[in-house]
Amino acid sequence: MAQESSQVAPRYLTGDKAGLQEFLARFDVFLFDCDGVLWSGDHLFPGTVETLELLRKNGKQIVFVTNNSTKSRADYRKKLEGLGIPSTVEEIFSSSYSASIYISRILQLPENKRKVYVIGETGIEQELRSENVPFIGGTDPAYRRDVTSEDYNKIAAGDESVLDPEVGVVLVGLDFHVNYLKIALAYHYIKRGAIFLATNVDSTLPHSGSFFPGAGSMSAPLIMMLNQEPVALGKPSQAMMDSIEGKFKFDRSRTCMVGDRVNTDIRFGLEGKLGGTLGVLTGVSSEEEFVSGDVRPHAYLDALSDLLASEGA
Amino acid sequence: MAQESSQVAPRYLTGDKAGLQEFLARFDVFLFDCDGVLWSGDHLFPGTVETLELLRKNGKQIVFVTNNSTKSRADYRKKLEGLGIPSTVEEIFSSSYSASIYISRILQLPENKRKVYVIGETGIEQELRSENVPFIGGTDPAYRRDVTSEDYNKIAAGDESVLDPEVGVVLVGLDFHVNYLKIALAYHYIKRGAIFLATNVDSTLPHSGSFFPGAGSMSAPLIMMLNQEPVALGKPSQAMMDSIEGKFKFDRSRTCMVGDRVNTDIRFGLEGKLGGTLGVLTGVSSEEEFVSGDVRPHAYLDALSDLLASEGA
Repeated sequence: MAQESSQVAPRYLTGDKAGLQEFLARFDVFLFDCDGVLWSGDHLFPGTVETLELLRKNGKQIVFVTNNSTKSRADYRKKLEGLGIPSTVEEIFSSSYSASIYISRILQLPENKRKVYVIGETGIEQELRSENVPFIGGTDPAYRRDVTSEDYNKIAAGDESVLDPEVGVVLVGLDFHVNYLKIALAYHYIKRGAIFLATNVDSTLPHSGSFFPGAGSMSAPLIMMLNQEPVALGKPSQAMMDSIEGKFKFDRSRTCMVGDRVNTDIRFGLEGKLGGTLGVLTGVSSEEEFVSGDVRPHAYLDALSDLLASEGA
Repeated sequence: MAQESSQVAPRYLTGDKAGLQEFLARFDVFLFDCDGVLWSGDHLFPGTVETLELLRKNGKQIVFVTNNSTKSRADYRKKLEGLGIPSTVEEIFSSSYSASIYISRILQLPENKRKVYVIGETGIEQELRSENVPFIGGTDPAYRRDVTSEDYNKIAAGDESVLDPEVGVVLVGLDFHVNYLKIALAYHYIKRGAIFLATNVDSTLPHSGSFFPGAGSMSAPLIMMLNQEPVALGKPSQAMMDSIEGKFKFDRSRTCMVGDRVNTDIRFGLEGKLGGTLGVLTGVSSEEEFVSGDVRPHAYLDALSDLLASEGA
């Protein structure tokens, strides 16, 4: 059905009360992209809170799905709260949490290879802890230093004082303290057999109305050195969908992905064979893309709050 | 001729005195790859010094061509000397020097855009100074720090206190102190119109019998963020050949590239339409690659010192 629907024109639901009711009745779970759907930057769209309330009132499960890897779910809940959106930590699914779930519940790591070497900030560490996944690296100040000639020899020799033999996974997210030593260690862990994971592969990070290096660009040196892509845990990677399923055990056919970008959000839902995908025109993709692009949602709205018209007179 | 010769089987010259004499007579200039040709790691091949002496005695010009970007020519001459190979600074052509020549003699930069923003170590700085090219960044300790929230705002706004308006080139080489701030600045300079150059695109650096992040992996985040490849100044990039020509004004038809790797050295000579390419079997590529690979030298030897047989009884 997902495949088929990406070929046909999507249904335009704004102002179509019967169509909205019919659409909503098909789903128990709604996965929400956030920026461009619920808000833009620091600006909350009017009606966002009421729309989420309506869905909850009707027994729908809500999951906020974000590629942001620097924040933990608790951090992200605070962000939602700051924007006036009530939520619980359990409703939030970030790429760092997705990675933690993937490592703890999907990967079958051997007993002696369960440690994760992290390139990233505290958000990743908090989520690994929440799943009891042991890790090294990350924000540990011991890794925030120059490489020494002793490092070269020890790393090349596989010395256990610099390369922990229990590391079975390298997880790369956005790291504002990335350096030569960290990249060298990640390269050698992967060469020695560790699984190469990335929280997400977004090459840039939107900030201050411009762009800065994103989580994807942290993996770039390793991809070039290894000639190998990481398994990415952010949208549109299906490893993230598997993680969401690993946690919520939902029925994909009764689940709808809501997003503003065809190449990430809508593709994420279509490739995940969800029952539905819903585009909104308050973000990146245009109506033309929704209607005649290569990747098309099942339905679309001018704005998320148009869902409110499914109720009342 | 280069094109043609890459299609036919190369001539095997070891032990063929007449063939050697005929081959040598065709060239005035010999461009030498170093590691795998003159030495391997710290081991000088027997006969290297005598072979270079023979060429010099017969009036041949010698140029040592290396992708190493961390060393200046003076540093590299010391390395050659340490291995027992007499040389002059003028005979050495490194990728950092190549980049400097390319910037000073090939690029036509506008008067107010002549400054280079450097990601790299002191070797690059020394070579830029040797060509009187103004630069910022590099080993300046002011760039060896964490990114601040003030940086984001100022960089996004194009504030001249963080983004020098005279920067017209970003030059990326191997930098053991690469960090988030340096990559963010490079990205914004290029987005604002600076030319994106790399000393070389070797993804790894051989060290201690293993591999570590190379100059190419420093460019990788920028390539991913910008979706743009740099002009690379190392082998096999023809920008390096143009730089060598820019300095020596040699006759390409009377020049021979000597190397051990088909995909860098031999390709470099063939694409540069040199009169000849000479492979040696003391390095990476095998006889099979020389004889029946996609990229074939005009001639090959078991070892460079086999050239000595062109003289004597």
